[in-house]
Amino acid sequence: MTTITRGYRFSASHRLHSPELSAAENALAFGKCSNPFGHGHNYRLEVTAAGTVNAATGLILPLPKLDRLIREQILPVFAHRNMNLDVPQFADLIPTTENLALVISNLLQQHWAAYVGDTQAVLSKVRIQETERNAVEV
Amino acid sequence: MTTITRGYRFSASHRLHSPELSAAENALAFGKCSNPFGHGHNYRLEVTAAGTVNAATGLILPLPKLDRLIREQILPVFAHRNMNLDVPQFADLIPTTENLALVISNLLQQHWAAYVGDTQAVLSKVRIQETERNAVEV
Amino acid sequence: MTTITRGYRFSASHRLHSPELSAAENALAFGKCSNPFGHGHNYRLEVTAAGTVNAATGLILPLPKLDRLIREQILPVFAHRNMNLDVPQFADLIPTTENLALVISNLLQQHWAAYVGDTQAVLSKVRIQETERNAVEV
Amino acid sequence: MTTITRGYRFSASHRLHSPELSAAENALAFGKCSNPFGHGHNYRLEVTAAGTVNAATGLILPLPKLDRLIREQILPVFAHRNMNLDVPQFADLIPTTENLALVISNLLQQHWAAYVGDTQAVLSKVRIQETERNAVEV
Amino acid sequence: MTTITRGYRFSASHRLHSPELSAAENALAFGKCSNPFGHGHNYRLEVTAAGTVNAATGLILPLPKLDRLIREQILPVFAHRNMNLDVPQFADLIPTTENLALVISNLLQQHWAAYVGDTQAVLSKVRIQETERNAVEV
Amino acid sequence: MTTITRGYRFSASHRLHSPELSAAENALAFGKCSNPFGHGHNYRLEVTAAGTVNAATGLILPLPKLDRLIREQILPVFAHRNMNLDVPQFADLIPTTENLALVISNLLQQHWAAYVGDTQAVLSKVRIQETERNAVEV
Repeated sequence: MTTITRGYRFSASHRLHSPELSAAENALAFGKCSNPFGHGHNYRLEVTAAGTVNAATGLILPLPKLDRLIREQILPVFAHRNMNLDVPQFADLIPTTENLALVISNLLQQHWAAYVGDTQAVLSKVRIQETERNAVEV
Repeated sequence: MTTITRGYRFSASHRLHSPELSAAENALAFGKCSNPFGHGHNYRLEVTAAGTVNAATGLILPLPKLDRLIREQILPVFAHRNMNLDVPQFADLIPTTENLALVISNLLQQHWAAYVGDTQAVLSKVRIQETERNAVEV
Repeated sequence: MTTITRGYRFSASHRLHSPELSAAENALAFGKCSNPFGHGHNYRLEVTAAGTVNAATGLILPLPKLDRLIREQILPVFAHRNMNLDVPQFADLIPTTENLALVISNLLQQHWAAYVGDTQAVLSKVRIQETERNAVEV
Repeated sequence: MTTITRGYRFSASHRLHSPELSAAENALAFGKCSNPFGHGHNYRLEVTAAGTVNAATGLILPLPKLDRLIREQILPVFAHRNMNLDVPQFADLIPTTENLALVISNLLQQHWAAYVGDTQAVLSKVRIQETERNAVEV
Repeated sequence: MTTITRGYRFSASHRLHSPELSAAENALAFGKCSNPFGHGHNYRLEVTAAGTVNAATGLILPLPKLDRLIREQILPVFAHRNMNLDVPQFADLIPTTENLALVISNLLQQHWAAYVGDTQAVLSKVRIQETERNAVEV
Repeated sequence: MTTITRGYRFSASHRLHSPELSAAENALAFGKCSNPFGHGHNYRLEVTAAGTVNAATGLILPLPKLDRLIREQILPVFAHRNMNLDVPQFADLIPTTENLALVISNLLQQHWAAYVGDTQAVLSKVRIQETERNAVEV
């Protein structure tokens, strides 16, 4: 199996806080990430596509197609946004790195065929790096 | 001259927007960084101290002293904070990377003697890296 | 499957040398890493946990729990240590990156339930990066 | 399973262009990478070997053996080369990152036994990082 | 003094070879970089501007202005190019990292007023990183 | 002024401890770096040379000359060494990053003419990065 991984960056803010948890439970689960006015990160998104290498082009998929998918369907939703207040998917969902990776993964699955459907490539992994130290993979 | 540079990281959010500028001027100066609910970054702070090397210790300054200065006077102010809403210095000042570097530089100057005053080291540079691409030095 | 990976850093020294091998065999296997007084590295440890995302917190596991495991059971053993002389597990075991990854992996398995047992997360990977060029995964 | 990954770097140039495609199709698939005189990259090659840890040495495989394989069979072919004009494998094959990873993977398979055959290690992954943003794995 | 540094990336190829030097002298000065068909790099360009911080905007200069300068006057000349064959400035000049930094520095000086002239910022440094190991500053 | 900076890496171990200081003073100055059997680092050495660009070669200095200086006079002294026990310069000097930078700087000054003396380049800076967080410049 051959895969290609492409990286993107965006900056966003969030607050990790659950109205269903007590103050103590929020502190235990999220620590300072629960501060009322939020904070932010430079996120790195890595999208991995798997497939066979096309004999005519030598490519798994033309990267401009993938770039267009990210530019049109992902970055406008998250880049330079407050995820709690700006992103509809986080109206009732805590914007942890785990949930962010799942939400982006769902968006990519949903739009994959329209942007990359004329290739053999399938979406095989989504990785979100929140800081130098934390990364989530789906 | 010999210098030592030590790096620290913190995450914070901000909105770049001036009430004194028109909507068009804000857009021109700040682009998407002017979005109403803000966004955030993983900031890297680098503090450079200059001085002679102490003959007994082989050090310009003991790093635990510098670490305590940053841990007590800098990180509580900025880490996991919304700079517009949480940081008093930005009540009337736009939290650009330039201003953030100047505010931190002032705080370090103000507390330097109390934490590092028993060494020969002087504060020689403050650098804030906002993203992979942007850095400000004072 | 969803995973979260968290990174830690520590500095340690070691000497790669087997008393059961001849001088020539030691040289062949370890080269300059067999120098009698040892040398050292900045190690990066990455711990990957796999599991489902908790609906209430949006987390695979609260990172403070994992941090406490590493801070109490791993770092005191290896950080700022000479692995040949300070670490009991290397009394009769050569402290190669491979063996270091296996020893840390065993320690994590042994203490996982006590620190992270109230979550669904399982330990899925331990990675040790010894230099920019070498990494071992278990 | 335990793996060890070792990284190498080389600089090379290439042009992505297929004589079987029209000018428009070349532009669509390769964009500016199709410019007539080519361009280049600092490639990072990562080779991953899997195996059991040898009890006498604590190693999956002695890295000098792997280094010799890369130094003798891989770097002379690609390093400081124009892949389209200097590398026989790309006489009729477009030197995309995908094809580069496949060609290097084939070369490693072909020479593995001669260089590393006295160990239990098997070649498990070849990764080529073309830029900060693109990587292919085989 | 306050400075802001912004980074850009581009890929290009070059051959280091002087027709005025003998084959032996070329080999001595440039080694494998003198191979006839050239090779390439991922270059990182860092532009540093110095100035006072504008009180209304909190900026030394609005980065979109600098980005437009680079996008219109620098990247079209060098990105995805063979510097020996595509770049007029290197018709009679060897495209070493030193000369590349000087050529880019001259282009920036020449166009600075037109793009950034309405700010107080002056161009203070141009840095070209050719590989992980080599960088030139002007 | 134009400068070129070239990076090198080496691994070494050290113990930070002064026989002239009390146990409490050693702990205060060096913390865990004073542990009796030492620890180690992956050091990155950056050497910066300043000069005019030679018109015939386009170079400040041919890097193979600088590489030979480092390979013959610096790396054999420090690489894969225990600095306290293996390096004569540290017989009576604590191997802090500050002192390491000064010792390497002195060695480079002493051998500069013999290796690079036929160029116009002068040694302008030596930088030692001990960890991701600490760096000393001379």
